[in-house]
Amino acid sequence: GCDRWADCCSCLKLQTHTMGLVYLLQIDEEVAKLLELKARLGGDDGKHQFVLKTAKGTRDYNPKQMAIREKVFNTIISCFKRHGAETIDTPVFELKETLTGKYGEDSKLIYDLKDQGGELLSLRYDLTVPFARYLAMNKITNIKRYHIAKVYRRDNPAMTRGRYREFYQCDFDIAGQYDAMIPDAECLKIVYEILHELDLGDFRIKVNDRRILDGMFAVCGVPDDKFRTICSTVDKLDKMSWEDVKKEMVNEKGLSEQAADQIGEYVSMQGGMDLAEHLLQDQKMSQSKQACAGLSDIKLLFSYLQLFQVTDKVVFDLSLARGLDYYTGVIYEAVLTQAGVASVTTEAQNGAPGSTEESVSVGSVAGGGRYDGLVGMFDPKGRKVPCVGVSIGIERIFSIMEQKAEVSAEKVRTTEVQVMVASAQKNLLEERLKLTAELWNAGIKAEVMYKKNPKLLSQLQHCEESGIPLVAILGEQELKDGVVKLRVVATREEVSHTVDIHTRTAKGF
Amino acid sequence: GCDRWADCCSCLKLQTHTMGLVYLLQIDEEVAKLLELKARLGGDDGKHQFVLKTAKGTRDYNPKQMAIREKVFNTIISCFKRHGAETIDTPVFELKETLTGKYGEDSKLIYDLKDQGGELLSLRYDLTVPFARYLAMNKITNIKRYHIAKVYRRDNPAMTRGRYREFYQCDFDIAGQYDAMIPDAECLKIVYEILHELDLGDFRIKVNDRRILDGMFAVCGVPDDKFRTICSTVDKLDKMSWEDVKKEMVNEKGLSEQAADQIGEYVSMQGGMDLAEHLLQDQKMSQSKQACAGLSDIKLLFSYLQLFQVTDKVVFDLSLARGLDYYTGVIYEAVLTQAGVASVTTEAQNGAPGSTEESVSVGSVAGGGRYDGLVGMFDPKGRKVPCVGVSIGIERIFSIMEQKAEVSAEKVRTTEVQVMVASAQKNLLEERLKLTAELWNAGIKAEVMYKKNPKLLSQLQHCEESGIPLVAILGEQELKDGVVKLRVVATREEVSHTVDIHTRTAKGF
Repeated sequence: GCDRWADCCSCLKLQTHTMGLVYLLQIDEEVAKLLELKARLGGDDGKHQFVLKTAKGTRDYNPKQMAIREKVFNTIISCFKRHGAETIDTPVFELKETLTGKYGEDSKLIYDLKDQGGELLSLRYDLTVPFARYLAMNKITNIKRYHIAKVYRRDNPAMTRGRYREFYQCDFDIAGQYDAMIPDAECLKIVYEILHELDLGDFRIKVNDRRILDGMFAVCGVPDDKFRTICSTVDKLDKMSWEDVKKEMVNEKGLSEQAADQIGEYVSMQGGMDLAEHLLQDQKMSQSKQACAGLSDIKLLFSYLQLFQVTDKVVFDLSLARGLDYYTGVIYEAVLTQAGVASVTTEAQNGAPGSTEESVSVGSVAGGGRYDGLVGMFDPKGRKVPCVGVSIGIERIFSIMEQKAEVSAEKVRTTEVQVMVASAQKNLLEERLKLTAELWNAGIKAEVMYKKNPKLLSQLQHCEESGIPLVAILGEQELKDGVVKLRVVATREEVSHTVDIHTRTAKGF
Repeated sequence: GCDRWADCCSCLKLQTHTMGLVYLLQIDEEVAKLLELKARLGGDDGKHQFVLKTAKGTRDYNPKQMAIREKVFNTIISCFKRHGAETIDTPVFELKETLTGKYGEDSKLIYDLKDQGGELLSLRYDLTVPFARYLAMNKITNIKRYHIAKVYRRDNPAMTRGRYREFYQCDFDIAGQYDAMIPDAECLKIVYEILHELDLGDFRIKVNDRRILDGMFAVCGVPDDKFRTICSTVDKLDKMSWEDVKKEMVNEKGLSEQAADQIGEYVSMQGGMDLAEHLLQDQKMSQSKQACAGLSDIKLLFSYLQLFQVTDKVVFDLSLARGLDYYTGVIYEAVLTQAGVASVTTEAQNGAPGSTEESVSVGSVAGGGRYDGLVGMFDPKGRKVPCVGVSIGIERIFSIMEQKAEVSAEKVRTTEVQVMVASAQKNLLEERLKLTAELWNAGIKAEVMYKKNPKLLSQLQHCEESGIPLVAILGEQELKDGVVKLRVVATREEVSHTVDIHTRTAKGF
């Protein structure tokens, strides 16, 4: 499962290859564009205003952002490892044709590389298609893997909302032929653990099944060829009212009012295992074999979730549709429900703490589902490898954590230095360097100023600025006595330590 | 400092901008290429043979390779952190113009993105230019940072030798106006620590200074405009004999035989602080102010290296030139000297253990130097930020570690799972899932098979294959007794543990 984690979900449509034609059109466009550029440059005198910026929709991560990023990654990776996942990596670009026909309309958002002679390449758009390519290429039929890496989309960025053209995806997937709903339940357990540990506030995990949606559309009288388009309208229920969704179904998509109303009844339903049980008895719904298969699996899933003790956050929600077309079974999406998080955003933005009125939904922070057909698209013989996965909306989580850090009194440390080796007197550079090396050799994180005679004040200031807790102060008297004065920066408390800097016994720190 | 870490060093030439002209030529080329492609595709019937591969010169990392990669990264990052470094990240692509004029002839190896309307972008070629761009853009005048990320070069890959079009760079740099040679000495200390900890065998760190090279060329009678080209010939001394290098100087580069011979005398010199002292007294060399400045700094550097206790591996070598043109002061390069490592390669390749005759130099595994001018190229007012850095040749290190793992008896684990929850009897799926969740909740890395009734043998086999040390076996009797049988997979030793799986007290593991 992989997604943009943003307001507009990407819609992956399993199109057939139409490369030849598309190329011909693109080439004409390219030629026109280049000729225009040539004309433009020709009129120029060659002078050039240098622009100091990153590419549109991208950003540098500064040390503070990196410290937050590392903390989030550590939590997530620990969870993946606790569940026995391996990890793989794939190249940042794939053959263009590997991505062709996988993303439907959104293919226009793919970054292509220039044809510099050789293969036609594109930057990866997600991690799921490269994963499927990897499995098919290496004939792997079962694996539990995570992959954290950047993906690329030529979208209109809304960077203030944590939406970029270069952004991380953080995927966990289980591939293999297993008994129903066991790996699926583990994916939900993982989402639960991660959101719990990241401490982002309360959350809900919505669950549904593509077969239930399809069955529901069938029994409500939606024509087969309108399943996908009606499904994508249902997907908007988290941002639009039912009235507007119904209008779109009837007016734009040509559905009968009666069918729409019946759908409306179903998609308002939320519950747990009991709701699945109830719908299995539902006169209409029970007519669809597909729906019944999905409902039985939802029941089974909930029984496993009970064993995993996570049902308090999971809700069976018939309005959950998910944008991606490749899902074949269970689908899920986690959303933060606590106003607190959104209000953090508001506070950070307008500097008015406590004004929670403007708090809005922060949207989904994880999602995924079962996609049993994707790997088969890559296998020359079409052999299927059933897969279920989850993608953590890591960029959104970064945003929330950055905002939290912003309003928090606690300072984010960007280094882990434990001790600064300083001196109050002049001409002690050699002694400082020697002691610092001793500390490094003992595995202690230590720093020393790169000046012959730094002022004590500037050395102490550096400690305070970067949160170094201890400072080892060398002086003539201490050297004579064979000791080092160790000061706790915060309290200014001092103790003397005996240090024989000739025989590497500085482990007393 | 940044480099390809391969046989042919990349040569960064600080050219002036000639973008306008270059574009005009490129556009004509592009138009011709596209029209040709159009003709080719037009003749095609649209059918398309699907190729299942990664892009030329790139590779996937499988879980085993990732486990090795993670281990190497952990060692290196620990060292960087011990030295108080922060980390940053930059986008994988930069504005094309940011890279223009930074890499000389090698600019042709830059991957450009297709112009899809918007900015012209290129994939980063190294991490040093983005770092300089970052410093100038954010007006940062001092920072100690590391950056580990992939860079891209449209080179002819020699993948068997660990050379790819997509490969990692692993850079540590200190930017700021500091007292001479202190940060430079720390960079060498870091190289020493990392190579020592990675346990790759014996190594040497060669040190030289660009000012000594330039001074040497001057006093040997090399014309000013031939410094760079003669320098790049000297750089070949690690792969070519002096005779061949001399031939190139005289025959190809038009140097006088006498000048070449004088250079030959100098570049054969190796030593320590004593050699620097000796050359400061050298009648010829002492005529060059530049050389003297460099020699004094080498002396100072060695005095700091003595304090850091690393002089046993460092050698002042006048033949070290380094390919990159942006260096302005001290330069260094670490090479593995132990035949053992190369012989591992040989063994792994031809399966003949002990045949060390074919062992060849594995080349440099780290290198860098001082580049005081690069940031100024990005600053609108040309403000300089002195920098010194080192780049660890991580891809070569991966190769060596992979080969070592290949010939080693020890199996590389790709997961960290501590315990497998199994059952010998049927119908215990619920109990297995429940216990597994207890273990996860207690922070224990645990796995369970995704089958209702897996065979005990297949559960044990999985443990052996993936190196899981413990298996918790559930059975009717154990459940009745309220215990779990815990078996050490390797020895088959068994003990019973009391486990109350209702109250989360499974921490006894």
